[in-house]
Amino acid sequence: MRRISKHMIISKARLEAFSDGVIAIIITIMVLEIKVPHGSDFTDLKKIWPVFLSYVLSFIYVGIYWNNHHHMWHAAKGIHSGVTLWANLHLLFWLSLFPFATGWMGENHFAPLPTALYGVVLLMAAIAYWLLQQSIIYTEGTNSALQKAIGNDVKGKISLLLYSLAIVIAFVKLWIADFIYVFVALMWLLPDRRIEKILDD
Amino acid sequence: MRRISKHMIISKARLEAFSDGVIAIIITIMVLEIKVPHGSDFTDLKKIWPVFLSYVLSFIYVGIYWNNHHHMWHAAKGIHSGVTLWANLHLLFWLSLFPFATGWMGENHFAPLPTALYGVVLLMAAIAYWLLQQSIIYTEGTNSALQKAIGNDVKGKISLLLYSLAIVIAFVKLWIADFIYVFVALMWLLPDRRIEKILDD
Amino acid sequence: MRRISKHMIISKARLEAFSDGVIAIIITIMVLEIKVPHGSDFTDLKKIWPVFLSYVLSFIYVGIYWNNHHHMWHAAKGIHSGVTLWANLHLLFWLSLFPFATGWMGENHFAPLPTALYGVVLLMAAIAYWLLQQSIIYTEGTNSALQKAIGNDVKGKISLLLYSLAIVIAFVKLWIADFIYVFVALMWLLPDRRIEKILDD
Amino acid sequence: MRRISKHMIISKARLEAFSDGVIAIIITIMVLEIKVPHGSDFTDLKKIWPVFLSYVLSFIYVGIYWNNHHHMWHAAKGIHSGVTLWANLHLLFWLSLFPFATGWMGENHFAPLPTALYGVVLLMAAIAYWLLQQSIIYTEGTNSALQKAIGNDVKGKISLLLYSLAIVIAFVKLWIADFIYVFVALMWLLPDRRIEKILDD
Repeated sequence: MRRISKHMIISKARLEAFSDGVIAIIITIMVLEIKVPHGSDFTDLKKIWPVFLSYVLSFIYVGIYWNNHHHMWHAAKGIHSGVTLWANLHLLFWLSLFPFATGWMGENHFAPLPTALYGVVLLMAAIAYWLLQQSIIYTEGTNSALQKAIGNDVKGKISLLLYSLAIVIAFVKLWIADFIYVFVALMWLLPDRRIEKILDD
Repeated sequence: MRRISKHMIISKARLEAFSDGVIAIIITIMVLEIKVPHGSDFTDLKKIWPVFLSYVLSFIYVGIYWNNHHHMWHAAKGIHSGVTLWANLHLLFWLSLFPFATGWMGENHFAPLPTALYGVVLLMAAIAYWLLQQSIIYTEGTNSALQKAIGNDVKGKISLLLYSLAIVIAFVKLWIADFIYVFVALMWLLPDRRIEKILDD
Repeated sequence: MRRISKHMIISKARLEAFSDGVIAIIITIMVLEIKVPHGSDFTDLKKIWPVFLSYVLSFIYVGIYWNNHHHMWHAAKGIHSGVTLWANLHLLFWLSLFPFATGWMGENHFAPLPTALYGVVLLMAAIAYWLLQQSIIYTEGTNSALQKAIGNDVKGKISLLLYSLAIVIAFVKLWIADFIYVFVALMWLLPDRRIEKILDD
Repeated sequence: MRRISKHMIISKARLEAFSDGVIAIIITIMVLEIKVPHGSDFTDLKKIWPVFLSYVLSFIYVGIYWNNHHHMWHAAKGIHSGVTLWANLHLLFWLSLFPFATGWMGENHFAPLPTALYGVVLLMAAIAYWLLQQSIIYTEGTNSALQKAIGNDVKGKISLLLYSLAIVIAFVKLWIADFIYVFVALMWLLPDRRIEKILDD
């Protein structure tokens, strides 16, 4: 566990602001994938329905990431190494692929491959989140507020498992994969009360 | 009314910054719907006139939301629960559909269905705003600065009614629907002096 | 000159952050108008040359606005009324049309009408800037740091005149209009030392 | 070495926030160049592979710039002149061309000219970064924390040399140019420990 110098704590604010900026842009430019239809009838509106649905799902997922990211850095004391900084950028990288994965899945009406790829992006983002968490805990120690807050991180482990499952199932029974994505989102929808609890104590 | 822990008040700043980021992006990417025409004559400029008009209207609406959001959070003491946080994201979701609704209405020269859909997005954003307001008042109590500031929230209730009206009227007398959108915008154009007043006291 | 309440001074930071966000987005999405060419030869690169040049010019203009906006709000004490707030949004509105005007001028190789329209957007942004300045001075008084800093605002007045001139000349002698745009940009390129000076005293 | 007035130090925060905003937007809109394919097969996915690869490379480069920019301004005491401010905007200008250069290189499967142009943008950004660094050192003196931190700036000088080399080699042996871009990125991937070290002392 490295000594936390004062100037590093200042950096945390800038890392949070930068991450917020990137996440705000991701959540907003996703909507650009809902292309304005040329006609003005109900049939034109019906055609973009799957794109809209996939947008709603991704909006919730990015919202969850913003929320959890917020709680994670709140519990963390600061950035202690370049590794943590790049672990954070690595997470933003996978999140930045949401608009692409969302658009591809929506425009192809939840076809097998795009649905599986959506799962790959979800899985990679979850792994990136986990790596970031580990890099913070590595420097702050297992006695840190963050480690206490996440505990066994059961929700995190279940998510990784379910995403992996959905990627395979997408080629067999499509609706089960879609159901898994919705289920995991609902599981996370509530803010991470574990962290809130520890900090209140 | 839950106890407001210190770390929650810090969170308010990040929620405001994130919301500001999303609103700033929404208000700016809307302009991307004004596609650059291929020709360079007055006729080319005239063709994008309805898109421009719908952009002006939406710019004012998003500006109003930014302004009111700003005053609401200024009056609020902090974020006390995940519900408030998601109520805020829910509002941002409907605001993020402004570029799409604006572009569709503009490109179809204010045709009935796109005009009605624009009203639906306005209505849903207004409902989302009201839900957010209620979730804050629920935790801060009816004695809170926010509750005092909004009072009976007459403007809010009238807006909901007028949007609903415009959605139906869009299929009967189009210009009345458009007139309603402009009227409600003008009604809100002034900043919420009710909140300013209470806080000054 | 109204009393400046404490909560208004806090608002100044949020208005600056929001404006910075919008200006950052404007300056960056402008580059999206430089469409990636399909071929990979020098001729493909040469075709986008005018779009690139117009982008450079607009980047400088938006940079100047960010810079001056920064100095203006630095000298101002706070936001004292909804009028100031909307005057600021009004400025952002005209700045948000830069990507469109830039793209149209560039893609049409500086044709007369797009060049004139570019001037109209420059003129309207300059008027909006002046209105914002006046609204601040109106509430802070002619004795304020801002009023002292801008003095007679000769540069501001000359700019308005030159933009108006360029709009007309664009239909007669195109290159003179382009020259005026470059000239005014160079005139403003230096930060507003007048304000820096007063504040240092 | 000019006296650093207090209001200038405040400005540093706004310059950092603005730069962060622009960099956050650049890193995120780059992904819009990965166009959603119309089909939903593996072949459609394979076609966008080079675009994806070029995106990964550029994401890392922009991340490096954000990281180094962050460390540079952390070591700097403040903005002392308009020159520094414009040197910063000049850097942002070249960074803003990353999405275009990345998209052109990716869509043309790393053809010679687009690969060379990518190198030109990298070179110009590196020069702009160096100019910004010099403008800060010029006012803060060779005894400043920043000067001590960068020392001889060997990495910076090697980068300039390698980019120049890659631009020429792109027309002869393409893969060597690509290799150089990857190599320089890896060289910078670690945060600038030199600055961290000095500040800790």
